Amino acid sequence: MHTIHQKFEISYSYSVFFTQNIFSPENPVLANFLNTFGAGDFQRKALFVLDEGFVSHYPQLQENINRYFTLGNTSIRLSGPMLVVPGGEAAKNDPALFDEIVRAIDEQGIDRHSLVVAVGGGAVLDLVGYAAAVSHRGIRHIRIPTTVLSQNDSGVGVKNGINYRGKKNFLGTFAPPVAVFNDSTFLKTLDDRDWRGGISEAVKVALIKDEAFFTWIEQNSAALASRDLPTMEKLIHRCAEMHTEHIRSGDPFEFGSSRPLDFGHWAAHKLEYLTDFQVRHGEAVAIGIALDSVYSWKVGGIKEPDLKRILDLFEKLGFRLFNEKLSENDKINLRQGLSEFREHLGGRLTIMLLSAIGRGVEVHEMDDALIAESVDYLEKHYL
Amino acid sequence: MHTIHQKFEISYSYSVFFTQNIFSPENPVLANFLNTFGAGDFQRKALFVLDEGFVSHYPQLQENINRYFTLGNTSIRLSGPMLVVPGGEAAKNDPALFDEIVRAIDEQGIDRHSLVVAVGGGAVLDLVGYAAAVSHRGIRHIRIPTTVLSQNDSGVGVKNGINYRGKKNFLGTFAPPVAVFNDSTFLKTLDDRDWRGGISEAVKVALIKDEAFFTWIEQNSAALASRDLPTMEKLIHRCAEMHTEHIRSGDPFEFGSSRPLDFGHWAAHKLEYLTDFQVRHGEAVAIGIALDSVYSWKVGGIKEPDLKRILDLFEKLGFRLFNEKLSENDKINLRQGLSEFREHLGGRLTIMLLSAIGRGVEVHEMDDALIAESVDYLEKHYL
Repeated sequence: MHTIHQKFEISYSYSVFFTQNIFSPENPVLANFLNTFGAGDFQRKALFVLDEGFVSHYPQLQENINRYFTLGNTSIRLSGPMLVVPGGEAAKNDPALFDEIVRAIDEQGIDRHSLVVAVGGGAVLDLVGYAAAVSHRGIRHIRIPTTVLSQNDSGVGVKNGINYRGKKNFLGTFAPPVAVFNDSTFLKTLDDRDWRGGISEAVKVALIKDEAFFTWIEQNSAALASRDLPTMEKLIHRCAEMHTEHIRSGDPFEFGSSRPLDFGHWAAHKLEYLTDFQVRHGEAVAIGIALDSVYSWKVGGIKEPDLKRILDLFEKLGFRLFNEKLSENDKINLRQGLSEFREHLGGRLTIMLLSAIGRGVEVHEMDDALIAESVDYLEKHYL
Repeated sequence: MHTIHQKFEISYSYSVFFTQNIFSPENPVLANFLNTFGAGDFQRKALFVLDEGFVSHYPQLQENINRYFTLGNTSIRLSGPMLVVPGGEAAKNDPALFDEIVRAIDEQGIDRHSLVVAVGGGAVLDLVGYAAAVSHRGIRHIRIPTTVLSQNDSGVGVKNGINYRGKKNFLGTFAPPVAVFNDSTFLKTLDDRDWRGGISEAVKVALIKDEAFFTWIEQNSAALASRDLPTMEKLIHRCAEMHTEHIRSGDPFEFGSSRPLDFGHWAAHKLEYLTDFQVRHGEAVAIGIALDSVYSWKVGGIKEPDLKRILDLFEKLGFRLFNEKLSENDKINLRQGLSEFREHLGGRLTIMLLSAIGRGVEVHEMDDALIAESVDYLEKHYL
């Protein structure tokens, strides 16, 4: 009997909106989206899941959301009590939180034409996005990222995930949101570490893709370091634009081996674990980029003045470029980092290095001895 | 700042192969697929997960799979010990089994370019497919269905899932397999109930889409009832063909409200739960189809002779068309069935009924009193 060949395409689209004071009754951006979202003559509902860390800096958040929905701006109603879940990486380590969200989806009757809305940092967006993606085989979700990191990088992308058995993002899916709302006023709630941390992802995309953007960040490093909001808005917009463009033009669900946006990330992921997430993601990425930049220089990818530009920029932005955990049993830990990375991606190892500022180059091997030398370099200059 | 619009397509393709004695060393079908699957200069691995119920009828299965891989027919190697998990719906109720598979994926180093291969009935394929789909954000998986039901319906489709808090398939994803292998020799291991049960899904697609196929099933009902394998192979092939065609030409990941292939399924799902899965899926589907056919007749969708043809066919095939649980508190339970169905799909309720044999018609309401009368009809004729 003849073989049956199956083939089809699935089309995904979503918008990333930029706004301020999204839950102010006068702001129509969210309501306009909700009112035009989908069709049908039935009542749609929305379940909000909020990041506890964000709520603690914005205590009137629930009240404002309630007011936004009860003032009648939108045809969608709230499904029931909002959930508030702990933020930060710890949220992704606790299976009970996943369960809590799934249970609320069940109990509040969220179906495949209703919505789950996550408001918070990247970890909460990852957790909520995952819970939504696997409930009823895919509840639509909206992301309202509240940190620099999530507004310019993870929150505008298509991934979600939780940690499992000590492996970062071991469980997860590719599930695009139906919309992302970046509210820059939320960034005022950030502590200095999180404000700064998110900038490292912008430095990353600039380094591998856009020298002009890197130069712009250099020129604006003082404004960024002193928390100038309009400058940060521009940085986030450009970074989000490049991130979404990369997803669109590449391999959105990563069926291949390549994953160039993960420049600097193999060491960063390991460092987060080694420090029990005391070093936050953006901070770890800065160190990971510094490490891979030194490595790139050691293998002749970039010249010394370019390396200096990179390291100097991070210093001006206020990043630490070394952590003690990098040199404790460094070789063993760093090798494990590479092998975990290989396993998570699968197949041939593909690491992004630099051949110039603004130009990434993929390699498939890294030399353990040179990695160790790169760690030594950072230790010597930045301990 | 301007809104960023994101849009991309993801392309999926897979083949459904038909074969006999798939793990016989002389059979090249699986090896040919594995050897041409993907590319790269690294070792790919496969983790096999086997259905305990199937293994009990095919005790040399593991040995045969080991021999198939060690004889060097394939460039892919086994990743480690095979898992054997309980089959049947119970497998989907036990979160520990999901965890066991995820743990094996982790411990045996299955990455995104390796494979998970599920061998078993629909429940095991659903469970394994789900575990694979969410591990590392999507491990590729192969399905080797061993029952009529999974070979002609669920196994060739794109869904997976497990039960949660008493809700069927509450957790799951849409994740197409990379290949499906239907081995008809496996069907010899089935007990009569499972042999028969799977035929109901073929009756379903025939009723809503293809009168000629319905007539063919009528003409071959004696051969099917007496377990003639070549006849069953033809039934499975046609049913799988129609099922994959329906997915391709419709809404593969069910973003809309419509779900016409679920003819007869709202009552079937409920009945499975009410009987603690003592009534198996295919058996429940036959009753569900009978119920919705009677209902279709009551609302003037089909004429009485057509209803008789449908009910007679099920009787000739050996199905029971009534279960006591249908009439215990029938109205309450059946109404709950409908509301759960609505919630799982989301949005507007869409139920498939019949306007003729071979022609389904979607409706958005069902009348509780007429549902009760339809139950009465089945009770009167088939208790």
